[in-house]
Amino acid sequence: MRPVAVIGIGKTPFGVFPDRDLRSLTTEAIEKCLKDAHCAPAEVEAFYLGNFAGPSFVGQNHLAPYVASAAGITGVPCTRFEAACASSGSAFFHACSSVAAGMYDVVLVGGVERMTSQPTPRVTEILASAGDCNGEIRAGATFPALFAMIARRHMHQYGTRREHLAAVAVKNHANGAKNPDAHLKKLITMEQALAGKPVADPLTLYDCSLISDGAAAVLLAPLERAAGFTSKPVRVLGIAQTSDRLALDEKEDITTFAAVARAAQKAYQMAGVTAKDIDFAELHDCFTIAEIIASEDLGFCRKGEGGPYCLEGRTCLGGEKPVNTSGGLKAKGHPVGATGVAQICDVALQIRGEAGARQVKKHSIGLAQNLGGSGATCVVSILGAAA
Amino acid sequence: MRPVAVIGIGKTPFGVFPDRDLRSLTTEAIEKCLKDAHCAPAEVEAFYLGNFAGPSFVGQNHLAPYVASAAGITGVPCTRFEAACASSGSAFFHACSSVAAGMYDVVLVGGVERMTSQPTPRVTEILASAGDCNGEIRAGATFPALFAMIARRHMHQYGTRREHLAAVAVKNHANGAKNPDAHLKKLITMEQALAGKPVADPLTLYDCSLISDGAAAVLLAPLERAAGFTSKPVRVLGIAQTSDRLALDEKEDITTFAAVARAAQKAYQMAGVTAKDIDFAELHDCFTIAEIIASEDLGFCRKGEGGPYCLEGRTCLGGEKPVNTSGGLKAKGHPVGATGVAQICDVALQIRGEAGARQVKKHSIGLAQNLGGSGATCVVSILGAAA
Repeated sequence: MRPVAVIGIGKTPFGVFPDRDLRSLTTEAIEKCLKDAHCAPAEVEAFYLGNFAGPSFVGQNHLAPYVASAAGITGVPCTRFEAACASSGSAFFHACSSVAAGMYDVVLVGGVERMTSQPTPRVTEILASAGDCNGEIRAGATFPALFAMIARRHMHQYGTRREHLAAVAVKNHANGAKNPDAHLKKLITMEQALAGKPVADPLTLYDCSLISDGAAAVLLAPLERAAGFTSKPVRVLGIAQTSDRLALDEKEDITTFAAVARAAQKAYQMAGVTAKDIDFAELHDCFTIAEIIASEDLGFCRKGEGGPYCLEGRTCLGGEKPVNTSGGLKAKGHPVGATGVAQICDVALQIRGEAGARQVKKHSIGLAQNLGGSGATCVVSILGAAA
Repeated sequence: MRPVAVIGIGKTPFGVFPDRDLRSLTTEAIEKCLKDAHCAPAEVEAFYLGNFAGPSFVGQNHLAPYVASAAGITGVPCTRFEAACASSGSAFFHACSSVAAGMYDVVLVGGVERMTSQPTPRVTEILASAGDCNGEIRAGATFPALFAMIARRHMHQYGTRREHLAAVAVKNHANGAKNPDAHLKKLITMEQALAGKPVADPLTLYDCSLISDGAAAVLLAPLERAAGFTSKPVRVLGIAQTSDRLALDEKEDITTFAAVARAAQKAYQMAGVTAKDIDFAELHDCFTIAEIIASEDLGFCRKGEGGPYCLEGRTCLGGEKPVNTSGGLKAKGHPVGATGVAQICDVALQIRGEAGARQVKKHSIGLAQNLGGSGATCVVSILGAAA
């Protein structure tokens, strides 16, 4: 397997864009990405697109050639990947693998979701289709409901408190306020977070990620060809995609995500690093409890201690291991199908030292963790400076 | 790149199964496939699933881990591919590439669609989402309407007649009648086909493929390991996935599919064969005109002569190059996401000499052509005897 490099990144701002359609968002991200890599559309040998629910959100299926052709990319394999909220993480995994294996040299990966065209109850219903239709969906369980059960159990088992959840929200909002492309650039206090409107007890409005429109893209090439495109390549040190059962009631323990632990182990092994070596990370905080559990499953802290780990400030911008410096899904926004690739863009930006007001000091090795549904898919990617 | 072999095949019958759900159809195909290859679920290193519109048809997204875990496959990468009617052809392409590149040894590919749970007008609407939502869908163009325009233009440009279209239907119904797993096992006459109820002029009921439920699966391994699983491996000689623009009005010529011609050229080159060397084929006859155009774009006959080529009996079961011996999408059925992998099963069955009443005499090299939408995705696969 050949070393793989991220040679270009591009993103739209995340937010509510009533005047934009899914295709124009994607082509904007693609054009920025290709420009960043000094690459022409005709050089792209394959296109991997992550999208969760374009057919339900905007009535369009067969999305990969639909957006690629608008960006001047035709003829080559154009494929859509769907793995719930890990859709573009999965596209990135398969794209990296194809370059590593020598199938292609120059591969474009995109992710997009246009969500705000639907009223919120319909969005909630569409998101719920990533749960188990025989049990969870039939019972009316929305994703806030599923993660509320997870949070409640984590509280019961490990003594996690509402303050711990709120600390994640406060931190990510603070980071988002420094990110010009974030959906919400709004500082919140611990008091505000604790006083949020209940959504699904114990989760309040401030524990839930945002419903956003947005797109992201990255360009890959073998490391040996990276210098031909960019002076700032970022190397993919390790990557893994894993799976688990969908339904919460089929899992032995809902306070841990087996797919995350497994993906982390494989990615660490491939990169030849341990959790200690990770300087900073973008974690999948679809709900605040998800960031807490991810920091445990990834080995950043011990099992059950994810709450205090955040509350003590160890994952804040100046902390020992900054988490979600972009603002995370909580403040940067969560256009579902775009999130996985957007995380890669944000990690690469830090490694390149271009993260502006939110730049971290130690930025040699960064990790991105992208979760699908309530944990049935996970992609963990570890990126590092190429030199 | 390593030679790849199909070491197991499995399919459900295609038809209308009100008592079955999407998951049980898929696990039936997977279990038959793993049994055929003498392989345990725990040996599967990755799962590639083709599905077009499970979220719209049955309200379930995040399908790959959903069905894989029910078949005893968890932990490994489980990914859904969506490329309209070429969804599982695309999954097969990516799976073959991953084994060829040495990423995995034992890889399972599935395809499934459960369509008949929705009323026919809703099915038509869901299928239309593979067209261009800005133009075609907004204008109310269904797929029969799009292919009617293609047929009308082919008639205008090449003198193709209704009899030529009907000949495809008559042949494929005759073949389907010999296939115990076909959705329709009903012989029709040329007179019946010509007198079919109009759907979108010039296409009648007998020019349109079926709305079916069904699933299919194949197991892949490097050729060098095939003997450890089966005494009858089938080799993947060549394979390519290509793309084109979605909207008909963006194409220079709607009587040819650029993606098909391009995929054929690449697959022939990889296999080191020409159209002449193909003994038999499964072509994507979503509409009768599509089989006629495919036989031209694949080089089986000259441009514009696909109609007479079929009418003269050259593609019938005893003809020089039998096409759609399974009955094709027309009679075997067309559970959209299952079709690409089902074609591979049918080609492998012929190569193994196990096609029963529809077995062809020359069965060394077979081709499968899987088309997405009105031609924006195409996968061409060429299989051959392994010895």
